[in-house]
Amino acid sequence: MTKLTTVHLKAPYLILIGDLADPTYAKTGLGIVDWRPDLVVGQLRFAGGEVDMGVPDMTVAEAVGAGARSLVIGVAPIGGVVPDSWWATIEEAARAGLDIVCGLHFKLSSFPKVVAAAKTSGARLIDVRNPPDKLPIGTGLKRSGKRVLMVGTDCAIGKKYTALALDRSMQAAGMNSTFRATGQTGIMLAGEGLPIDAVVADFISGAAELISPDNDDNHWDVIEGQGSLFHPAYSGVSLGLLHGSQPDAFVLCHDATRSVISGWEHYTLPTIQSCIDQHVIMGRRTNPDIRCVGISVNTSKLLTDKRKGYLAKLNKETGLPCVDPLIDGCGEIVEFIKQQYPEG
Amino acid sequence: MTKLTTVHLKAPYLILIGDLADPTYAKTGLGIVDWRPDLVVGQLRFAGGEVDMGVPDMTVAEAVGAGARSLVIGVAPIGGVVPDSWWATIEEAARAGLDIVCGLHFKLSSFPKVVAAAKTSGARLIDVRNPPDKLPIGTGLKRSGKRVLMVGTDCAIGKKYTALALDRSMQAAGMNSTFRATGQTGIMLAGEGLPIDAVVADFISGAAELISPDNDDNHWDVIEGQGSLFHPAYSGVSLGLLHGSQPDAFVLCHDATRSVISGWEHYTLPTIQSCIDQHVIMGRRTNPDIRCVGISVNTSKLLTDKRKGYLAKLNKETGLPCVDPLIDGCGEIVEFIKQQYPEG
Repeated sequence: MTKLTTVHLKAPYLILIGDLADPTYAKTGLGIVDWRPDLVVGQLRFAGGEVDMGVPDMTVAEAVGAGARSLVIGVAPIGGVVPDSWWATIEEAARAGLDIVCGLHFKLSSFPKVVAAAKTSGARLIDVRNPPDKLPIGTGLKRSGKRVLMVGTDCAIGKKYTALALDRSMQAAGMNSTFRATGQTGIMLAGEGLPIDAVVADFISGAAELISPDNDDNHWDVIEGQGSLFHPAYSGVSLGLLHGSQPDAFVLCHDATRSVISGWEHYTLPTIQSCIDQHVIMGRRTNPDIRCVGISVNTSKLLTDKRKGYLAKLNKETGLPCVDPLIDGCGEIVEFIKQQYPEG
Repeated sequence: MTKLTTVHLKAPYLILIGDLADPTYAKTGLGIVDWRPDLVVGQLRFAGGEVDMGVPDMTVAEAVGAGARSLVIGVAPIGGVVPDSWWATIEEAARAGLDIVCGLHFKLSSFPKVVAAAKTSGARLIDVRNPPDKLPIGTGLKRSGKRVLMVGTDCAIGKKYTALALDRSMQAAGMNSTFRATGQTGIMLAGEGLPIDAVVADFISGAAELISPDNDDNHWDVIEGQGSLFHPAYSGVSLGLLHGSQPDAFVLCHDATRSVISGWEHYTLPTIQSCIDQHVIMGRRTNPDIRCVGISVNTSKLLTDKRKGYLAKLNKETGLPCVDPLIDGCGEIVEFIKQQYPEG
């Protein structure tokens, strides 16, 4: 029987930026360089490219010589396609044996020359939006190790960056932790994971169980969240992820200036307290000890003096550490976790 | 743009039973004859077949002459395959222009002769386990008409039969109702629907919205449930279906003798009251007026005198009509619904 597994990428990466002029569209590549520089061997740029991620420029051959294992398409241009002129380079990389890693909406398998090149070298074509064909059904069995899941009052509210920042703060505090990816960009940053919203509905919890497997008793999986229990379109993904992750703890992510579901403006956001309460009630089903260990707020649209007041008020109301992870880091949440789990 | 739609079957059906000897494996065909005899033109049996569904025996040619539009494979044999000797008949039906409808685990498209026959006649090969490729994202927008969703303390606890019985009782009471299918057998019974547990996770609520579209103000969709909010593997399906269905009302389905999740015995069932409360709390997100209108209990494993006491006790505790739909019918629940929704 084939062992069921998550998507695994081979590092280090050569990141393809091409002749991109606007860094807005290089978010994927810049995110990898920012959060996981250890995974990056270099960037591949064409003449005329103005975006520089601050890592060595390399050709495909140079990257292979430097040990690269994958070419990661590091851009997400408008329309979701890469320019025609880039494909010769992607083909060259596949022929040289680099796995091609892509998070865009097209499928790499629809480019015959790239498919042929990969076949000759044995390189893999990896669309990180696509989960593996075979996934397990959730077992609900308790796993060893500890888990903290990011949840949100809405989608696209900072769950991935909170998880990355929390993992970074935990490691800085000498804790044993791993960022666990549940979305395509997260998978490129982690080097592995599963796009949980792309699996077949019956397998959501089973996929979540694969993402955070058994581990050391004092190890923390810091799990990227998806969707929201309160989202009229995506709540099923969130509940399956909550039950499959069996988190000991969760961090609630929120945006200080958001009052309605983004794109579903006829839905108001739940209150912070009701959101915490519902996650505890539902999460208890697979982990009776689940508790909230902090609130992560995107305060980037607030003025500095308002920002501090907002977080202080929220802290007073909930008794939990409240931080903007990209401004304050997650040190306060890590301290709280250490108090709450002294054995860990 | 293609209109997004559910799976639609063409009636009436010729039901293929073949040379089956044991009615246990003809559950699909027998269910259709039992619940929707209006969809059935006849049965196709081979020499030696001992199962008789009590409808006219017909050859493919006779069924076509009688107006049949589809050949439904009405058996679910052990191992999930149909005997080799049956395929010539299936091919004949496809060549004669009958859609072939199958709910087993293999794919009809993997039988080249059947594919070729269907191509010449224009017949469709329909695997009811497979949802359409294109499904919408949930909008959360309120739809006209009324909806009652079956939910459960566990999977495989009578949600489909409760929905069918409730629909039958509503129609007997002169109400305007439609059974809405969310699983493969239900789709064959209804002639349309979507296998909600087989859609990609991001589309669960969107698929649920398609299943019960806008309707007359006094019309009730009686929606087959799937999974359970409390199931460690399938809760995501159930929450997405709850949010997308936007039910005005729900019926909680339970088995009187079950105390743990079937197949996941390390999980005890939730109490009836906590199950009702959680469905109200979560369901309010897309329908603020959601309420429980009855409890459907499989009491087949209780003795007759115990059965009545069990239902009476549950009624006293909850104040809701409590019935075994296959013994008592759903008349009491229909009466309660009429009281609760006098305008409908």
